[in-house]
Amino acid sequence: MSRLVSRRHLAAAAALRRSPAAFASRWLHTPAFATVSPEEISGSSPAEVQNFVQGKWIKSANWNWIVDPLNGEKFIKVAEVQGSEIKPFVESLSKCPKHGLHNPLRAPERYLMYGDISTKAAHMLGQPEVLDFFAKLVQRVSPKSYQQALLEVQVSQKFLENFCGDQVRFLARSFAVPGNHVGQMSNGYRWPFGPVAIITPFNFPLEIPLLQLMGALYMGNKPVLKVDSKVSIVMEQMIRLLHECGLPAEDVDFINSDGITMNKLLLEANPKMTLFTGSSRVAEKLAADLQGRIKLEDAGFDWKILGPDVQEVDYISWVCDQDAYACSGQKCSAQSMLFMHKNWSSSGLLEKMKKLSERRKLEDLTIGPVLTVTTATMIEHMNNLLKIPGSKVLFGGEPLENHSIPEIYGAFKPTAVFVPLVEILKNGNFELVTKEIFGQEVLGRSVNGTTYAGIRARTTGAPQNHWFGPAGDPRGAGIGTPEAIKLVWSCHREIIYDIGPLPKKWALPAAT
Amino acid sequence: MSRLVSRRHLAAAAALRRSPAAFASRWLHTPAFATVSPEEISGSSPAEVQNFVQGKWIKSANWNWIVDPLNGEKFIKVAEVQGSEIKPFVESLSKCPKHGLHNPLRAPERYLMYGDISTKAAHMLGQPEVLDFFAKLVQRVSPKSYQQALLEVQVSQKFLENFCGDQVRFLARSFAVPGNHVGQMSNGYRWPFGPVAIITPFNFPLEIPLLQLMGALYMGNKPVLKVDSKVSIVMEQMIRLLHECGLPAEDVDFINSDGITMNKLLLEANPKMTLFTGSSRVAEKLAADLQGRIKLEDAGFDWKILGPDVQEVDYISWVCDQDAYACSGQKCSAQSMLFMHKNWSSSGLLEKMKKLSERRKLEDLTIGPVLTVTTATMIEHMNNLLKIPGSKVLFGGEPLENHSIPEIYGAFKPTAVFVPLVEILKNGNFELVTKEIFGQEVLGRSVNGTTYAGIRARTTGAPQNHWFGPAGDPRGAGIGTPEAIKLVWSCHREIIYDIGPLPKKWALPAAT
Amino acid sequence: MSRLVSRRHLAAAAALRRSPAAFASRWLHTPAFATVSPEEISGSSPAEVQNFVQGKWIKSANWNWIVDPLNGEKFIKVAEVQGSEIKPFVESLSKCPKHGLHNPLRAPERYLMYGDISTKAAHMLGQPEVLDFFAKLVQRVSPKSYQQALLEVQVSQKFLENFCGDQVRFLARSFAVPGNHVGQMSNGYRWPFGPVAIITPFNFPLEIPLLQLMGALYMGNKPVLKVDSKVSIVMEQMIRLLHECGLPAEDVDFINSDGITMNKLLLEANPKMTLFTGSSRVAEKLAADLQGRIKLEDAGFDWKILGPDVQEVDYISWVCDQDAYACSGQKCSAQSMLFMHKNWSSSGLLEKMKKLSERRKLEDLTIGPVLTVTTATMIEHMNNLLKIPGSKVLFGGEPLENHSIPEIYGAFKPTAVFVPLVEILKNGNFELVTKEIFGQEVLGRSVNGTTYAGIRARTTGAPQNHWFGPAGDPRGAGIGTPEAIKLVWSCHREIIYDIGPLPKKWALPAAT
Amino acid sequence: MSRLVSRRHLAAAAALRRSPAAFASRWLHTPAFATVSPEEISGSSPAEVQNFVQGKWIKSANWNWIVDPLNGEKFIKVAEVQGSEIKPFVESLSKCPKHGLHNPLRAPERYLMYGDISTKAAHMLGQPEVLDFFAKLVQRVSPKSYQQALLEVQVSQKFLENFCGDQVRFLARSFAVPGNHVGQMSNGYRWPFGPVAIITPFNFPLEIPLLQLMGALYMGNKPVLKVDSKVSIVMEQMIRLLHECGLPAEDVDFINSDGITMNKLLLEANPKMTLFTGSSRVAEKLAADLQGRIKLEDAGFDWKILGPDVQEVDYISWVCDQDAYACSGQKCSAQSMLFMHKNWSSSGLLEKMKKLSERRKLEDLTIGPVLTVTTATMIEHMNNLLKIPGSKVLFGGEPLENHSIPEIYGAFKPTAVFVPLVEILKNGNFELVTKEIFGQEVLGRSVNGTTYAGIRARTTGAPQNHWFGPAGDPRGAGIGTPEAIKLVWSCHREIIYDIGPLPKKWALPAAT
Repeated sequence: MSRLVSRRHLAAAAALRRSPAAFASRWLHTPAFATVSPEEISGSSPAEVQNFVQGKWIKSANWNWIVDPLNGEKFIKVAEVQGSEIKPFVESLSKCPKHGLHNPLRAPERYLMYGDISTKAAHMLGQPEVLDFFAKLVQRVSPKSYQQALLEVQVSQKFLENFCGDQVRFLARSFAVPGNHVGQMSNGYRWPFGPVAIITPFNFPLEIPLLQLMGALYMGNKPVLKVDSKVSIVMEQMIRLLHECGLPAEDVDFINSDGITMNKLLLEANPKMTLFTGSSRVAEKLAADLQGRIKLEDAGFDWKILGPDVQEVDYISWVCDQDAYACSGQKCSAQSMLFMHKNWSSSGLLEKMKKLSERRKLEDLTIGPVLTVTTATMIEHMNNLLKIPGSKVLFGGEPLENHSIPEIYGAFKPTAVFVPLVEILKNGNFELVTKEIFGQEVLGRSVNGTTYAGIRARTTGAPQNHWFGPAGDPRGAGIGTPEAIKLVWSCHREIIYDIGPLPKKWALPAAT
Repeated sequence: MSRLVSRRHLAAAAALRRSPAAFASRWLHTPAFATVSPEEISGSSPAEVQNFVQGKWIKSANWNWIVDPLNGEKFIKVAEVQGSEIKPFVESLSKCPKHGLHNPLRAPERYLMYGDISTKAAHMLGQPEVLDFFAKLVQRVSPKSYQQALLEVQVSQKFLENFCGDQVRFLARSFAVPGNHVGQMSNGYRWPFGPVAIITPFNFPLEIPLLQLMGALYMGNKPVLKVDSKVSIVMEQMIRLLHECGLPAEDVDFINSDGITMNKLLLEANPKMTLFTGSSRVAEKLAADLQGRIKLEDAGFDWKILGPDVQEVDYISWVCDQDAYACSGQKCSAQSMLFMHKNWSSSGLLEKMKKLSERRKLEDLTIGPVLTVTTATMIEHMNNLLKIPGSKVLFGGEPLENHSIPEIYGAFKPTAVFVPLVEILKNGNFELVTKEIFGQEVLGRSVNGTTYAGIRARTTGAPQNHWFGPAGDPRGAGIGTPEAIKLVWSCHREIIYDIGPLPKKWALPAAT
Repeated sequence: MSRLVSRRHLAAAAALRRSPAAFASRWLHTPAFATVSPEEISGSSPAEVQNFVQGKWIKSANWNWIVDPLNGEKFIKVAEVQGSEIKPFVESLSKCPKHGLHNPLRAPERYLMYGDISTKAAHMLGQPEVLDFFAKLVQRVSPKSYQQALLEVQVSQKFLENFCGDQVRFLARSFAVPGNHVGQMSNGYRWPFGPVAIITPFNFPLEIPLLQLMGALYMGNKPVLKVDSKVSIVMEQMIRLLHECGLPAEDVDFINSDGITMNKLLLEANPKMTLFTGSSRVAEKLAADLQGRIKLEDAGFDWKILGPDVQEVDYISWVCDQDAYACSGQKCSAQSMLFMHKNWSSSGLLEKMKKLSERRKLEDLTIGPVLTVTTATMIEHMNNLLKIPGSKVLFGGEPLENHSIPEIYGAFKPTAVFVPLVEILKNGNFELVTKEIFGQEVLGRSVNGTTYAGIRARTTGAPQNHWFGPAGDPRGAGIGTPEAIKLVWSCHREIIYDIGPLPKKWALPAAT
Repeated sequence: MSRLVSRRHLAAAAALRRSPAAFASRWLHTPAFATVSPEEISGSSPAEVQNFVQGKWIKSANWNWIVDPLNGEKFIKVAEVQGSEIKPFVESLSKCPKHGLHNPLRAPERYLMYGDISTKAAHMLGQPEVLDFFAKLVQRVSPKSYQQALLEVQVSQKFLENFCGDQVRFLARSFAVPGNHVGQMSNGYRWPFGPVAIITPFNFPLEIPLLQLMGALYMGNKPVLKVDSKVSIVMEQMIRLLHECGLPAEDVDFINSDGITMNKLLLEANPKMTLFTGSSRVAEKLAADLQGRIKLEDAGFDWKILGPDVQEVDYISWVCDQDAYACSGQKCSAQSMLFMHKNWSSSGLLEKMKKLSERRKLEDLTIGPVLTVTTATMIEHMNNLLKIPGSKVLFGGEPLENHSIPEIYGAFKPTAVFVPLVEILKNGNFELVTKEIFGQEVLGRSVNGTTYAGIRARTTGAPQNHWFGPAGDPRGAGIGTPEAIKLVWSCHREIIYDIGPLPKKWALPAAT
């Protein structure tokens, strides 16, 4: 894995060369709010991630070491809060009343404040050096190509732009309907939950936690945020940026911990709502533990259907390659399965996909480590699939070579396994595809979350301008849009003003 | 309890007199769809309640006898489905696909069908004899004054009127936002959950189950409905009315069972959503069992605040009396506590309330049996309150006399116990009221569900034109309005159409 | 024209036969509110149409005779108000304040009243005998097939269903946005205009005036309604129905007059808004006279495009025939021009259309008199078209035969004239069609009002569930939907409540 | 008027002193896009205002000289387009198709482009030196205090913030309702008008034209903008800023002309919509000329009511002073009349208002020239009022002294004239105030446009977050909010997709 070693190496060499001007250099490359430099974090110069609670950055009794996914070096130490240390977090959450930090009838100036914070943060994040800072920081902990990492930061930046000026208060738009008599009117408000929790995964270290965090804040909630420790350094830095843009120190707590401690915190602090993004297994457990006071954006199993009309093969093979292998297939929306009408078999699609997959290389992280599954597990899964009659490896199917990815992570080439549909259907679970109902019918007969349809369809569009999230589940959470923020981070409250006057000549009626 | 006995008696006598013309008489008093006559149900002529599943009315291996709350006679037998008999219900639910019976892209003609069903049902229910039929039937099982029972039926009728014509399809209104390039547009739909369950309590035998049932159906779900067996006869009759108005037999199942069996059914049939209206204790258990796939409209603890401005004492004493004692205080919204500024102490308010409470009598059911708490329990609770220093009985505080209400139910006079606020506050739970923040401030600093504010405010407004339900809980369910139906009975689904064309001169980009 | 003569004849004969039982017969066939019997109006038994103002039906100094479009007999006399008689109408309008008869803050119980009126009127109009009554009455004055006339009544009935119950008050839903400080909130209301006028044409004697009238009333306006005298008998009867359903006598005035008198009325009474449906020529004059206080739904010039994909020829020829010739082409949405891709020339489409057009016959009014253009004018227009090189008559092109349609009306067979596109384009006005941009592109590059797209597209869908009206004009009015009612019949009013409290420690700032 | 003379004088002296470094100085004080320096414009160094059409800045055959409202010097020359020179403007407008430059189905990337332009412009305008530049430029042509001028710029800046990111495309949100059968769905879009015109007055040289201009552009229109020549220099500079932020040169034309020429342009270019802000007289004429294709935000006659509860006299006298005299009373929303309940007469309110008015001085422009009425006219008007029995001057009532305001403008002290209500009412026009219906009733019985109610109410709130504009007129235009932009700058277009499939077994029906 010479390139990556040498990247580190060269960086170190460069650091030496530029010393004693290193400080100045830091100032050139690192934004003022930042406490780390993405390119300089290494085993010999590890970064520290802290917690934030009750307005202060704090450490903990324990450090949890994170290893560099590209070379296995311990390169980040995270101050993980222990079960015995959660009291300040519980106290902090409990300071937030049930009616929130603001709501349409209380402290409305805070809506404006969040408009201002968003304006400033959007502008700061939009500076080339800040975009670059976060893109590179994302790359260090959640390896993906620079383009993919940059896109994640840009989407986050656009999201902040969407809530400049008065747009936060516009989220709190209410409605009213005339009542039964003069002086009566019923009002439907969007009300905050008050103290809330946010738990987010490793694959989008910035976008997922930032968008949910801001959504929660906009609507008047006080969140405690926990990001997967492997990548929490990114949001730790982002919170510093937000503080610099005016985020009040009391409004957000930030905690690093293991799952057991977080579970304990949730049960003790009893947030009115918890947003969980992550695996379905944990989601279901949490849903039961929290008795349903939860919204979930769980892992998708994402599929694509190519109908009988063969067209635009070059374009579609490219979209398939990107949807399946960008970010090493670790997007929530990564294409897991491709249903292909037989007409496509002679179209050259699979050959083109093979070629495209072979362009991917570790050097530029167009393929990289898988943070949740080991190589061995992936091989085992593939071998199980290959036991199905008629199945075969189309391409890939082998571990990556010449790398220093640590064994706890996966390192596998972009791989496609062909399985005949008839065999899948023996399991009886996919009755939908048995009938030839491609096209529009599929939309009316499915409940998939965010769905793309049409010749330019893809599975991995997760921008800030359309709802992204599951469907068909009352606990399902969306991310990103005004609609998502309102539905996830607030509830309906009805107030009927009935201010009179009393009817003239009101007389006491009989009891009923 | 001579009056009630003689009511029975007279009815029986009348029945004898009019025999053999009884059949004709039934036709005069009982709507065509009905299988019971509210005034004739009695220990000697008991009514039967059946279940409906897979398009057929069915009985069960067991009858559960319901006793007349006014005289303890076994007067209704309910075919309660046993744990061993739930298979047809499980199968029936499983026939409904996850994408529902209809959705904005599938079977839209069903939205129109439900507009027609609502039109017909609204008209049928609006006929004086049908209003009367249901009001009297409600009275028999959930004793309240004729006025209160009639109001429940009228609200249900108005609700149906609200969804005549195209109004059901208007509930499925979606929105769309322009995409990034020609041919792309993102669409936000309201999507059904598919198979769902509805569990409702005894206090509003018609309004709660009917409104939730129709809401579920409008949005494309297939519900199984369970109403508290004590009162399920009312909805059993209503489903017959709905069938007559065109409700397809496959669209709704109706089950009578105990809680254990229903729990089993939920776990086996695994409805995508369950609406539960009832006690908080059961609600929390269900929420955990169903891992949060639930929405709740749980029992409220409802309070009223009288601020420092004393005015309109006659009117307010009447509202307090109605809010506290109508339906024997068994409305979800019944006034449980009244906070009164000291200025009111010399206003005569309490004296007026006492007088009003004394107008209530068993004869016209302006006071009646309490179906969930025994007399002994109420006395015990009162005695506990009276141990608080300074507390005292203002009025009531004694069991009803001269009645034949069975012992399993409560029979207690309208009662008010005074407790000094300072003592309540020793428990530390009501910090809100310590400060003199009466008026508008209270609204901004609370999360109560449906809230009335102003001189004409009450706690027990539960009509069809404004949201009724809790706030502050992500699982909270509303009832009644278009907003409530959309938020409770459907979820957001995002479909992005990206139909092209491809950009002219599209060329293969580098991998990312 | 034997059939029609004999229809009259038979009716007369029947009338004789059933006398003296005529009264009983009237009761069988005519609804209680009605003052005419559609089948019995004739030259010998003419009907009378009156005016309604200030709560009373009134006549006028002059009768205007309407001739039967099928045989030229004077069969209806209309009490047309003269210029000298408009004073009561001016006074009546002026009694309505600028803030309307109701608005979200005033007399909200009137929203409920209109929900009730709509419920009752929907039910009454939905009775088979009432549907039949209005369908036949429409046929007598605006000849079209029974099916077409019935459809007009049914759409009107569905419209009324849409505004049952609380749906009228839901139209007055307002919104509010949090202000800059506690106590401030800005509210956007839909406010009525107050006194308004409605002027509607001959082609939909019931649907257009009824839908606009009710929309105006729902939002709190007081309308004076003028329908083309040729057909005003239909709305005269409908207003009687509405009165019976609870419409307050003071809420609507109904006037018959010529255009000059109506113009005078508008200038004197100065309604805050006038809705005009009719010819573009009159619309533009009125717009200037009323200085733009007008909304217009003017005559469309409606076209259909058949793109290069030839399919479903039978279906499409049927749609083309219906769109072009139903109601003798007198719908606002009638297909005036058909653009056909050359691929269709050998599809048999034109031959099929010819055959379908030949099914039409005067006997069942699938073709009938044209009320605004004489036969001679149509022939002249056709001859002008035929001067264009390459143009030809495809079918029709001749006057109807064997009829007694009076000369002031047109009587012409269903006709299609083919004109080569290249010739049309010489005029330079249709640059759009020069390029081969069929399909979706057309939608993005046009401003047509209500537009149907897709294989099942038609031009003449004018139901109650989607907006019908022009686009691209700030004066453009829609009809039918909640959206249309809100935009046409109300305006935005913003009220900012700023109820304090004042900031603590407010101190006098410097002047600015 | 020594201070102002010396301001000029000092500026000139400074300019001399800093020469030859003037260029560098310009760079310090003047933004890069600017072609003028607000502090340096003078009779000896006059500024030039050009026109912009078809992508180019152009002059004209004629200069119109604007005099400095503070000293009468000719200090700005405006290239006013003559009647013979309008051809390029007509041609430019005609290049914009009726379907606009973009719409929800065409060129959606332009919505994003306008989000970007707004983001950049909001940021640029938010820079302290740019805020200062525009505030001072506004002061030079529309004299008001620095605070007031700055506020105008800040509101404009906030408005731009509101449409960052995706917020422009969110304006184009459409809705859809399920149709009658599979494949049918009706869609309501907001569609542009295409070529449009905007005409705005002198009093808010930046805010009014900028907000309307951007609203028009956001929705897809191509506007030609005409601002009162006296102040058009401000928007001329703003358009340069917008170009620098990415505004395409073809999207906006900017014209200076007299009213006659503009009228000619409107008639020849025939814009689909014209937004006019200005005097009611011109508005009505334009409305007739343009046959109602117009929306109006005309001069308000704004009043304030003080009800019987006397409170917060200091605060209210300050609000009254600001509402009446800030910007020398030239805001559209300036308080023209104050209705005062008699309870206030002994409150000291009028005395306090007098004192506050006397704080105003020409030096800081807290009082300044009136650009539309001469001093003589104001005196005449006052004298007419004083003929009313019982009326008297409360304060003011005299011309300003020691000033060099030119005679064509007005120079008058802040003035209040008391008129007994009983005398006003003799005219019979104010029946509302005869009854003692103060408070909430007033809102339900009025049609005033933007209305403030409550103890903190004012007349002159014209921010970017709530609708500002008249009510009660179908031509009424709002400014500022998303709601206003959508209703003013777009129209409803309905497209019904009916894409099939055909019903199975479709068979040819009979003709109807």
